[in-house]
Amino acid sequence: MNKEGILIVVSGFSGAGKGTIMKALLERYDNYALSISATTRDPRPGEEEGKAYFFKTTEEFEKMIAKDDLIEYAMYVGNYYGTPKAYVEEQLCAGKDVILEIEIQGALKVKEKFPNTLLLFVTPPSAEELRKRLEGRGTETQEVIDGRMKRAIEEAEYMDQYDYLVVNDELDVCVEEMHHLIQGEHERCFRNQTFIEHMKRELKGE
Amino acid sequence: MNKEGILIVVSGFSGAGKGTIMKALLERYDNYALSISATTRDPRPGEEEGKAYFFKTTEEFEKMIAKDDLIEYAMYVGNYYGTPKAYVEEQLCAGKDVILEIEIQGALKVKEKFPNTLLLFVTPPSAEELRKRLEGRGTETQEVIDGRMKRAIEEAEYMDQYDYLVVNDELDVCVEEMHHLIQGEHERCFRNQTFIEHMKRELKGE
Repeated sequence: MNKEGILIVVSGFSGAGKGTIMKALLERYDNYALSISATTRDPRPGEEEGKAYFFKTTEEFEKMIAKDDLIEYAMYVGNYYGTPKAYVEEQLCAGKDVILEIEIQGALKVKEKFPNTLLLFVTPPSAEELRKRLEGRGTETQEVIDGRMKRAIEEAEYMDQYDYLVVNDELDVCVEEMHHLIQGEHERCFRNQTFIEHMKRELKGE
Repeated sequence: MNKEGILIVVSGFSGAGKGTIMKALLERYDNYALSISATTRDPRPGEEEGKAYFFKTTEEFEKMIAKDDLIEYAMYVGNYYGTPKAYVEEQLCAGKDVILEIEIQGALKVKEKFPNTLLLFVTPPSAEELRKRLEGRGTETQEVIDGRMKRAIEEAEYMDQYDYLVVNDELDVCVEEMHHLIQGEHERCFRNQTFIEHMKRELKGE
């Protein structure tokens, strides 16, 4: 069966619990690797090179763009952020399912470039629950919460362009479901062309 | 999430273990229903109406064809065999994932008519293992075994038209994998249009 890893992009509403799900997924199962982004922003105290980010100068980053060394990149508040291809490919070859947490526009660009990418959209079970979670954090002003809810309206328009919907109601159930659906994807026929071709030849006695 | 059942067609090489897998699947999980075929052949001793088959006269069967009451049908050794739509739809509405065990031509016809059908192809891990299993049964002549192996060559040409490959190496692992991948399919975005539309409206406060 398919031994190469799958490239997985996870997006979803702010407040849906993406971070928590991914942390649990990486802790519980050993077949996942989280993609590490490159950025031109300065490291914050305690941020190690190659852990949260690969830190680059603008010149280095633009060289990566020119050499097509990035899966996707974007400019955000004056800094570049992007996904270096080398690390992802290395992990995929080693059989890891590599997870990218990026927003919708980036996700759709990745899918266009790599059609076998698996797009997952994380959502709470309802809009009411989303607002509750954002308010429950207690760290954001009402203005910020309203802004996030407004953004969710825009993001929801793209939900059906994703492959799977991951409803985060109970964390444990959600993490297990997500793991199972990713593992199920390894059994897709289009991901097992080598097995199929080998079977055809073996049946013919070639 | 998607509460309606999924229509699943299971095909595969003779000797791949379809029957055993399906039996285990139905015993272990309560979300499956096996479709019951209609046929014009005579009941064999002990075969009850509505268990192995729905028994029909040729006139009744042809009336079902005319009224488009069958999902698919075929003529085999002078008798009709087909899948009555009513039973399948009833089970799908009740939230059951309905399994049809049919050969490849029928499977592709069902997918054409109902594009949301999930096509699963069951295969042993290798052609060598397939031959071993057919010979291991000890009930068939070498001629019959050779015929089945020859048929497998033809059938293998259609493997990549299926959605998933189910490799039956160890039965228990295989049944669990098959269950997980079917459950994962319930989370596909295109199967959750109602949820997505509802979420969009709720976010907008409609």
